[in-house]
Amino acid sequence: MSQIYNRVALIGLGLIASSMFHAIKRAGLAGEVTGYARSAQTRDTAREIGLCDRVCDSAVEAVEGADLVVLCVPVGVMGAVAAEIAPALKPGATVSDVGSVKAQVIAAVAPHLPDGVHFVPAHPLAGTEHSGPRSGFAELFDNRWCLIVPPPGSDRSAVDRVEALWQGMGALTEEMDAEHHDLVLAVTSHAPHLIAYTMVGVADDLRRVTDTEVIKYSAAGFRDFTRIAASDPTMWRDVFLNNKEATLEILGRFTEELFALQRAIRTGDGDHLHAYFTRTRAIRRGIIEAGQDTDAPNFGRSNRG
Amino acid sequence: MSQIYNRVALIGLGLIASSMFHAIKRAGLAGEVTGYARSAQTRDTAREIGLCDRVCDSAVEAVEGADLVVLCVPVGVMGAVAAEIAPALKPGATVSDVGSVKAQVIAAVAPHLPDGVHFVPAHPLAGTEHSGPRSGFAELFDNRWCLIVPPPGSDRSAVDRVEALWQGMGALTEEMDAEHHDLVLAVTSHAPHLIAYTMVGVADDLRRVTDTEVIKYSAAGFRDFTRIAASDPTMWRDVFLNNKEATLEILGRFTEELFALQRAIRTGDGDHLHAYFTRTRAIRRGIIEAGQDTDAPNFGRSNRG
Repeated sequence: MSQIYNRVALIGLGLIASSMFHAIKRAGLAGEVTGYARSAQTRDTAREIGLCDRVCDSAVEAVEGADLVVLCVPVGVMGAVAAEIAPALKPGATVSDVGSVKAQVIAAVAPHLPDGVHFVPAHPLAGTEHSGPRSGFAELFDNRWCLIVPPPGSDRSAVDRVEALWQGMGALTEEMDAEHHDLVLAVTSHAPHLIAYTMVGVADDLRRVTDTEVIKYSAAGFRDFTRIAASDPTMWRDVFLNNKEATLEILGRFTEELFALQRAIRTGDGDHLHAYFTRTRAIRRGIIEAGQDTDAPNFGRSNRG
Repeated sequence: MSQIYNRVALIGLGLIASSMFHAIKRAGLAGEVTGYARSAQTRDTAREIGLCDRVCDSAVEAVEGADLVVLCVPVGVMGAVAAEIAPALKPGATVSDVGSVKAQVIAAVAPHLPDGVHFVPAHPLAGTEHSGPRSGFAELFDNRWCLIVPPPGSDRSAVDRVEALWQGMGALTEEMDAEHHDLVLAVTSHAPHLIAYTMVGVADDLRRVTDTEVIKYSAAGFRDFTRIAASDPTMWRDVFLNNKEATLEILGRFTEELFALQRAIRTGDGDHLHAYFTRTRAIRRGIIEAGQDTDAPNFGRSNRG
């Protein structure tokens, strides 16, 4: 893989940025990668573990001379960070981001960017339940989708370069508009996360079942929810607040369906339940065939030898 | 490990029974293991792959002379199977089961058993999204809990032998009463499964997001739900119909909490969301410390090299 940018600046050094650094280095996609994190502790950690070629003490310093600046901060602070770095952006540079919400991020970031700077929002659909600068690894994006969400009228060559970067980091890319992105993500990610958080909260609340019991007996199904519900709280607070309409719409549909299944349980309608559970099995099969998950039992957890 | 039973009969040859066979053989816990499945195709498969020392063409034949008979059939047919085998049970034999619901199973099975036959219900908290005679493996129960739910007045030595068998198969055991078991499982398993089924059903239903998109972009969180929602439909239909009250109670609490979080999203109450999401993280930590899941990102799925 050949170099795509001379200098890339990563603003925010959590799971995604640290994985990007490792993936960029693996394929030699950039000459220099600078980095900045608001927390001095995170910057110290980054320096200690060799995350980024150069860790800067301000966002402005990190973006100076960069051909690509990637905002890897929670969705709720994207606008403020864009305002801060805007005066220091190199003419002709591209700004991108990795936020899980796109319409609100575009609305918050775009107005701050000077003429002649391109904005190519992106969203890699990859992550783990871990966060912070130590959690990244080069393989995170391999065979995962990265959605590219260029606003109408974007410069084609700037978009192509961002896509090439993601492909170079191992990802598959696809373009879509911001509204569709936010709806798709509400279904595949935002609603499932809120539901998982809720179920884990309910279990924790219940007086007649102890925390110890919930923890000991989690292998019965609950533990898969806890993985999702262990994701970064700040990131997820911002996702829900910034993809409010689509998330609430999907949650409304979810509640409708849940009530229908609850009624089937209450009235003893076994046929309805069986038909529903049979249909959902097919989706799992599709995901495995599409290479987006493993068919190994329990995701290949270690219980099998 | 020394032999605990001369002859064990497994009625129903799905994931749990086939894993029990392999785990029993691994530790030499029984002299002979017989098996029976209602479907001729399943019996043929079992014979072909060497599942059970002897596969019988009737449940009655399988239980003849057995010291332990384990009902590994869906919860909804436990009573009918008990009625069928009751006349053929050896005096002094023990009947057990592996059902995910206990109060209804005890009510359905116990009346059929003759005097002098012990009944020691059990429930191994282990499974995968796969089912059928080929899905079993010896390690399934290693370090997983098996709950033993002896009805009041059970024979102590019969209970101890069933516990010893499960420990010999690698499981940790604990005794509790049927009502508490059913509530704990409603929280840790039954409600989470229904919720996962519902979410996968919603995604499948949605007209504006295609199935292809749901499948392609599932790594964003949704795919963890699909694993749970790929579990055996007949087994789960019976679980919900037979643990109705506890499941509906937990789902009621879940809906309450979900509505509170939806309102926080709608009103923009970020503090509430952040506090909630921080609390749920601690539960995940507890599960990992208790050895009931891996700390590897994404359950150690293969994306990391």
